[in-house]
Amino acid sequence: MTPDEARARFEEARVARLATVGTDGAPHIVPVTFALDGDTIVTAVDGKPKRGTPLRRVQNIAVNPRITVLVDAYDEDWTHLWWARADGHASLVTDGAELERALGALRARYPQYATVALAGPAIVIAVDRWSGWSAT
Amino acid sequence: MTPDEARARFEEARVARLATVGTDGAPHIVPVTFALDGDTIVTAVDGKPKRGTPLRRVQNIAVNPRITVLVDAYDEDWTHLWWARADGHASLVTDGAELERALGALRARYPQYATVALAGPAIVIAVDRWSGWSAT
Repeated sequence: MTPDEARARFEEARVARLATVGTDGAPHIVPVTFALDGDTIVTAVDGKPKRGTPLRRVQNIAVNPRITVLVDAYDEDWTHLWWARADGHASLVTDGAELERALGALRARYPQYATVALAGPAIVIAVDRWSGWSAT
Repeated sequence: MTPDEARARFEEARVARLATVGTDGAPHIVPVTFALDGDTIVTAVDGKPKRGTPLRRVQNIAVNPRITVLVDAYDEDWTHLWWARADGHASLVTDGAELERALGALRARYPQYATVALAGPAIVIAVDRWSGWSAT
């Protein structure tokens, strides 16, 4: 899959999985909603009940900005399998116009945020590399 | 979600996402088929065309056994969202009875492996912690 094709798969996907790395060298992974603007992916912490603060993904990014994001499709017909991945660097945006822009992009993409609270920080990812694989 | 509930979600899921960490501190993530035996998850490299050898996940585990595995469900009705995660340590099994047992567990779970080649190494994960979250 070409980088452009991988990026196009992100345009259409509704959920992605974000992986970060802790100071102990352990990976962490969580499903995320996201929005795409060129080679930037934004995601944020929403208002669903979570245990503890700050979230592990936020703690991890604060000390190691290297992240990867995956979208994929599973089907019992394995000729339909594909995945696309974005490797990049994340930064945390806690306030100001950049936070409002990120939250606005998420609200525009997910009508669910009309009733689900959306808070900061936003995680703004500069994608360094798009890649992917498709069975056919 | 209790650890037992999280483990039960893995019993039913058909695809998971495996995250590993490279020597450069960057996370890597890929969708995987898997089988479960108690607190052990096994996955393997199958015969679909891949670029380069050995695979990045295998390179990463060889130097850092810390891994995490995620299963999740997305639905536009966000009251149906859930995810379950297994944090653990992975080892690579390249031959012998343990490899055959791992490949056998995968073949038993996925009839697709009757026609899709399945090779080693197997990745055998000792799960240290089951966790999860459900919207309802």
